[in-house]
Amino acid sequence: MAISYNLCRRHGYSISRLLSRRGISKSSATSSDGAEVDLSHPAFMIWGANTGVGKTLVSAGLAASVLCDSQSSAKPIPSQFLYLKPVQTGFPRDSDSRFVHRKVSELFRNWNSSHIGLQASNHVLKVSVPASEEMPGVEVLEGASDGLRDLWFYEERRVGGLDYDGDDSKLLCKTMYAWKEPISPHLAVEKEMGAVQDSVLLQSLKELIASAFSKTIDRTWCVIETAGGVASPGPSGVLQCDLYRPFRLPGILVGDGRLGGISCTVSSYETLKLRGYDIVAIILEDHGLSNDNALLSYLRHKIPVLVMPHIPCDPSDDLMRWFFESRNVFICLQNLMYAAYMKRVDRLRHMASKAGEILWWPFTQHKLVSSETVTVIDSRLGEHFSVHKVVGVHDFIVPQFDACASWWTQGPDATLQIELARETGYATSRYGHVMFPENVHEPALRCAELMLEGVGKGWASRVFFSDNGSTAIEIALKMGFRKFLADSGIHDTIAKNMDFRVLALRGSYHGDTLGAMEAQAPSTYTGFLQQPWYSGRGVFLDPPTAYISDGRWKISIPETLMCGREKTNDMCMQTGADFSSVKDLFSFQRGSSVLADGYLAYISEQLTKISGGGLSTVLGALIIEPVIHGAGGMQMVDPVFQRILVRECQARKIPVIFDEVFTGFWRLGRESAAELLGCQPDIACYAKLLTGGVVPLAATLAREEIFEAFYRDSKEEALLHGHSYSGHPVGCSVATKAIRWFKDTSTNPNLCVDGNGLKELWDEGLVQQVSSHFAVRRVVALGTLCAIELRAEGSDAGYASLYASSLIRILREDGVYMRSLGNVIYLMCGPCTSPDVCRAQLLKVYRALDRFIASQ
Amino acid sequence: MAISYNLCRRHGYSISRLLSRRGISKSSATSSDGAEVDLSHPAFMIWGANTGVGKTLVSAGLAASVLCDSQSSAKPIPSQFLYLKPVQTGFPRDSDSRFVHRKVSELFRNWNSSHIGLQASNHVLKVSVPASEEMPGVEVLEGASDGLRDLWFYEERRVGGLDYDGDDSKLLCKTMYAWKEPISPHLAVEKEMGAVQDSVLLQSLKELIASAFSKTIDRTWCVIETAGGVASPGPSGVLQCDLYRPFRLPGILVGDGRLGGISCTVSSYETLKLRGYDIVAIILEDHGLSNDNALLSYLRHKIPVLVMPHIPCDPSDDLMRWFFESRNVFICLQNLMYAAYMKRVDRLRHMASKAGEILWWPFTQHKLVSSETVTVIDSRLGEHFSVHKVVGVHDFIVPQFDACASWWTQGPDATLQIELARETGYATSRYGHVMFPENVHEPALRCAELMLEGVGKGWASRVFFSDNGSTAIEIALKMGFRKFLADSGIHDTIAKNMDFRVLALRGSYHGDTLGAMEAQAPSTYTGFLQQPWYSGRGVFLDPPTAYISDGRWKISIPETLMCGREKTNDMCMQTGADFSSVKDLFSFQRGSSVLADGYLAYISEQLTKISGGGLSTVLGALIIEPVIHGAGGMQMVDPVFQRILVRECQARKIPVIFDEVFTGFWRLGRESAAELLGCQPDIACYAKLLTGGVVPLAATLAREEIFEAFYRDSKEEALLHGHSYSGHPVGCSVATKAIRWFKDTSTNPNLCVDGNGLKELWDEGLVQQVSSHFAVRRVVALGTLCAIELRAEGSDAGYASLYASSLIRILREDGVYMRSLGNVIYLMCGPCTSPDVCRAQLLKVYRALDRFIASQ
Repeated sequence: MAISYNLCRRHGYSISRLLSRRGISKSSATSSDGAEVDLSHPAFMIWGANTGVGKTLVSAGLAASVLCDSQSSAKPIPSQFLYLKPVQTGFPRDSDSRFVHRKVSELFRNWNSSHIGLQASNHVLKVSVPASEEMPGVEVLEGASDGLRDLWFYEERRVGGLDYDGDDSKLLCKTMYAWKEPISPHLAVEKEMGAVQDSVLLQSLKELIASAFSKTIDRTWCVIETAGGVASPGPSGVLQCDLYRPFRLPGILVGDGRLGGISCTVSSYETLKLRGYDIVAIILEDHGLSNDNALLSYLRHKIPVLVMPHIPCDPSDDLMRWFFESRNVFICLQNLMYAAYMKRVDRLRHMASKAGEILWWPFTQHKLVSSETVTVIDSRLGEHFSVHKVVGVHDFIVPQFDACASWWTQGPDATLQIELARETGYATSRYGHVMFPENVHEPALRCAELMLEGVGKGWASRVFFSDNGSTAIEIALKMGFRKFLADSGIHDTIAKNMDFRVLALRGSYHGDTLGAMEAQAPSTYTGFLQQPWYSGRGVFLDPPTAYISDGRWKISIPETLMCGREKTNDMCMQTGADFSSVKDLFSFQRGSSVLADGYLAYISEQLTKISGGGLSTVLGALIIEPVIHGAGGMQMVDPVFQRILVRECQARKIPVIFDEVFTGFWRLGRESAAELLGCQPDIACYAKLLTGGVVPLAATLAREEIFEAFYRDSKEEALLHGHSYSGHPVGCSVATKAIRWFKDTSTNPNLCVDGNGLKELWDEGLVQQVSSHFAVRRVVALGTLCAIELRAEGSDAGYASLYASSLIRILREDGVYMRSLGNVIYLMCGPCTSPDVCRAQLLKVYRALDRFIASQ
Repeated sequence: MAISYNLCRRHGYSISRLLSRRGISKSSATSSDGAEVDLSHPAFMIWGANTGVGKTLVSAGLAASVLCDSQSSAKPIPSQFLYLKPVQTGFPRDSDSRFVHRKVSELFRNWNSSHIGLQASNHVLKVSVPASEEMPGVEVLEGASDGLRDLWFYEERRVGGLDYDGDDSKLLCKTMYAWKEPISPHLAVEKEMGAVQDSVLLQSLKELIASAFSKTIDRTWCVIETAGGVASPGPSGVLQCDLYRPFRLPGILVGDGRLGGISCTVSSYETLKLRGYDIVAIILEDHGLSNDNALLSYLRHKIPVLVMPHIPCDPSDDLMRWFFESRNVFICLQNLMYAAYMKRVDRLRHMASKAGEILWWPFTQHKLVSSETVTVIDSRLGEHFSVHKVVGVHDFIVPQFDACASWWTQGPDATLQIELARETGYATSRYGHVMFPENVHEPALRCAELMLEGVGKGWASRVFFSDNGSTAIEIALKMGFRKFLADSGIHDTIAKNMDFRVLALRGSYHGDTLGAMEAQAPSTYTGFLQQPWYSGRGVFLDPPTAYISDGRWKISIPETLMCGREKTNDMCMQTGADFSSVKDLFSFQRGSSVLADGYLAYISEQLTKISGGGLSTVLGALIIEPVIHGAGGMQMVDPVFQRILVRECQARKIPVIFDEVFTGFWRLGRESAAELLGCQPDIACYAKLLTGGVVPLAATLAREEIFEAFYRDSKEEALLHGHSYSGHPVGCSVATKAIRWFKDTSTNPNLCVDGNGLKELWDEGLVQQVSSHFAVRRVVALGTLCAIELRAEGSDAGYASLYASSLIRILREDGVYMRSLGNVIYLMCGPCTSPDVCRAQLLKVYRALDRFIASQ
């Protein structure tokens, strides 16, 4: 099956796969739906530091070199060289593929010393109407869409090899799209009404490469020559450096040897680096200015810089002499490129086993991981990884939807990712890192301002930065405890005999450092073997949960909450009640229900029991994950229960901490889960999506009253906690960018018109279908999350269960990279991910469920 | 006093201050040695996307607009416009300052509607010999150095304002350095033998701006027009975008309106962003290609893009008409620039108070911080911050040496900082962040490989990534404990009744999360008010310490170690012993001394006491900061004591953890402190300098035996600890770059020829002098650290003391940003910092000590 890029110009590209079967395919090579980049042979981009720097001459020289000068083995073998010019303007007067076709044929005639012949072809695929009219003798296939015509233009010649009866070498030159005016493609499109979607262009490009690579010629090369400079717009207006990014092919940069050319070359190189490209070599024309020396020195000799002889200006010169003089340069270039190609493939092949030898992965039993199951990630773009895959002896780079949003950190689409890249570069260069206490810098201040105007709006007045969720929680607990001590007047002398605890919900999780661990109920994670110092310093309540089953929202009430209470019967009745929409579930009207009264009675009783009766247990704070228990298995807590709990604690002056590390920044469809819940904490923690998913950064927000509990005369009473990279400028800069991006309707198409939340991302009908599937116990679909609990019994259920592993395998084959929490699987997208992409992933899951059941 | 940039081409610039008094100065404006950038008036760089894009026309148009079109007030007031062309080639045929001088005079004659006249001057300062010979009628001042001649060329004209008796407006045009050949400045220098050091160029530039800004003309502007493109080399070969970075002036980018110009403009913009510059507007010539539309769209309308009319090609055109048609564009540009200037100054002025309102700083008693003492950091470059300073009503940006290395994280010099910026941009674009467990990506794998070949060489085989020192320590403890349990065969059922502890040294510090806190002895940080859950789960030994006093290394032995032991007398004698060099102190021969025997006896006795006698206390691990207790006051522990302690623990199968969060990566002159100590841990933690000081990243390294204690059949026995950004690609990428940079002799000039360590960075004689100063109790100078404990008694001593605050104030005035640990102050540089810079800072400290004593 083939991949298609559904590129939206306004928001850059978000990749979606179409379930169409690939026509021209090496179909046996891979069973997944698309070998994105076939690494069987070298394929390179040819970039230019400007227009007119000689890209086409480099392509031609390289082609001639590969076809004539790469006979390292004793017995000559045929070669194949695919030259692609995706975008050509000024056509037919200018045709780079025609130039390469003709020149290389001539060069072959002169240079080839073996008996092998060359079949050289030039093929022009689609042209604008005005361009087609410039070729009166050429047949045009009508019926073209978007103002582009299929041109039936094909020229071929055979050179040399007359006394040889083996296969010929092949030169395939193709112009994919051409327009008449010699201007930027996006303007030519406008003028000549011949538009091509980026997705279509990339799909064609992929098919052409696949077609050439599927031939049985061992020595095959492909180069794709761009138009103009690295950041010149393509036909849709998207810059070419962005347009071709999904392939992330390695590249050659044709530098500028003229006056000013050092600057253009350095800048172009940096633009490519800022898109995540690898540049194998720079090659430039000699203008007698020694630009190569300056470049070599600036690039610290890390990238080879080759120099071509000066190109004759006389248009009547057939360049044969120039090519001859350049021959060694192109041999050198070819060798550099081939070595880089081999090195990449070799490294990709060895990374998995090397990783198994020296890395120590978090949460991983290494004994259960074989190197075959290790995923080698070559890059990511937006919501997709590109992973290395070996099928037989062939290597591929294949895209996979990052369904776990890389531990719930990810939010950027492809366009935001590039913006964030520019931002990290800028912040590193402007600041690196600078000391934070008693200092201020723009990124930290702006980030704090945006948080207080956003997630902290209406309650928070202070921002304390740290590095990750776990540290943010430790800080929150210290804040909450101090406030409680200040309010309750407990001194440290009397307090030492108290059992100082935190109130929390069973099933919640707050991080892996000891202080955060103490706030969670005993579990696999907290056993003596894991952390001998853990004692479980919480009082843990059992919360009621909500979920979709058979298409309806339902509530499940734990026995501890139901039993021994007067209203048991009423409450039991309520559990039968269900809701047709998530809006009903969150409705404030539910606050006056019988169920709510039952919750209140339970909570009051528990709080009274703990603090009363002369016991020494003291509750210093309440900590909850609002709405969803993430690591605890994506359980939704009944919002009514959490609302009452918060209200009751605040009434008793127990500081309330919201752990929004997972839920913050649109994860559940609102900027904060507090907003969704409709009540405000005293302290809240954020991390993960805060930086848009680029680097670690965390923040603990607090009300001014919390801060004031530390505002004393002595330093000893300050909050003596800190981390070296507190408020680091790189993190705060990307956070600032991401926070704004997600809540701006001009960049986030998923925002509702009222600006208050994201529209539904998971197709409601499909969610209902999934929730009714035989294999499924419950579903929670909210914001960017769609979690599915599989029906499982006994040891198949729970966190340590490997029950879902075969389903995960099926989905990875199908291009969805998923991780499970025991028998709970989930899809997670970013705040800007298109609902179409979400639907496509969920559909894959739905279909995989059948195969999963069949395999049980 | 003035600042001079001591720029070294090979390693980019490292800024050093010369203690020379500034000639032309606004000397009363600031008492510190150098107002780096005077913000009294707008000053902008004019950058070009290429050569020949019209930078000089923009400069001229802007100058004319400022001088004629900015009379917003009712009563016209005189203006001053300083046009600087630091580097001119093709001189005297080409002279941009002459062009601006002439054109603006003419335009003023035509445009000026007020009664104010204009005095316009053009001044050429220094030219190469061949260039001077092209001006036969002009007097040349001989005696010039470096092949450059002082040219006595000055032309002036007065225009308009004849019936006006007030001050004239002024246009000052200056060419600072000129060469004859119309080629890149670095080539012209080579050819004409007229070199200028970057430091000298920047110093002259600064003086010229200061001189103009010191005049009493309210309306003053300055523009500095660069040569060629943004990344064209300056006279020394350093790219201009790097050359001018210390000023980090805001800029205008003159874009390229030609075919290919979108690419050049985008790339040039990105090159400037990658250097931390702010670009206020892009302006480009209209070539009928609507490049401005593409740029506006790509830059998301965040940066204004202005279009100038097409420039007449006819060389005989006097351009008067063109300027007239462009007049509104330049008014618009002027307004944009002025608004950006005002916005920047306004923001800088309000940041300190805003910070005090919404930030919550770590380790800070906010009540003790007034907004006047808050440092507003505008940027950093290498070892220096640029901070905002207000003197009277004037705003300045002033450099300060970051003497605390921003909480010991910093290592980069200016060149490395730019390299790291390119690296963060690349890694963000290539990966953003990707899921780590059971996955592998190049940055994490490479970073792990480099750590195992470096700091972990000879013992470690596994790398566990986390986010900061504190998390790395929690992980290390979990590793150590598990290994201990596995070795000792203690099951969790029997273990629950044991008092499970860690062996540690008093005075050590390991982080602020609860698990890390538990491993440190009770202190201000660990009190009930700070963390009610802290109980101090260590057994804490008192270590002997080493220091320099009166020019000699000495050892101090704590009473607990000395008392009650047979050899007390001998040991007491030993305390009198001292060492002439740090090499003697670390000598392995000391292992067979009487003192060492005493240490061994004490340690054995303690270990036996703890584990013997039927007590339930169990030591699960030893944790130490090797060589230096950082946060504990920069105390050096006698290396012999730590060596024996490690050996004895390892002999008893107690896993040994080195906390190298502070000491790792050359902080103490070796890549690891373990190397310096000469013994190997079982587990070690790294953070801070690991990323070169850019973003948080931590790693816990372990021996294979430690890893094997977790290598079991069940997931429950795996190390169930992790953080969302485990092994994040951005952090691992910069770490890879930094690790290589610091240990490569081609990038780190401080490496000894044997490659084993850094040469002495702190001048030995000066250190001895400081250690003999009346105000000083002890000094520890090792690697990048020079710590000084001030003599202080009672409440003046210890962490919470504010004793050093007046000394810190003196040093901040003198350009050294220092923080103290109570009565301990310290200077910390990077692994590549020039010893000259270190000496200059230490000299400032030495001098400040006298003033400090005098003020007591």
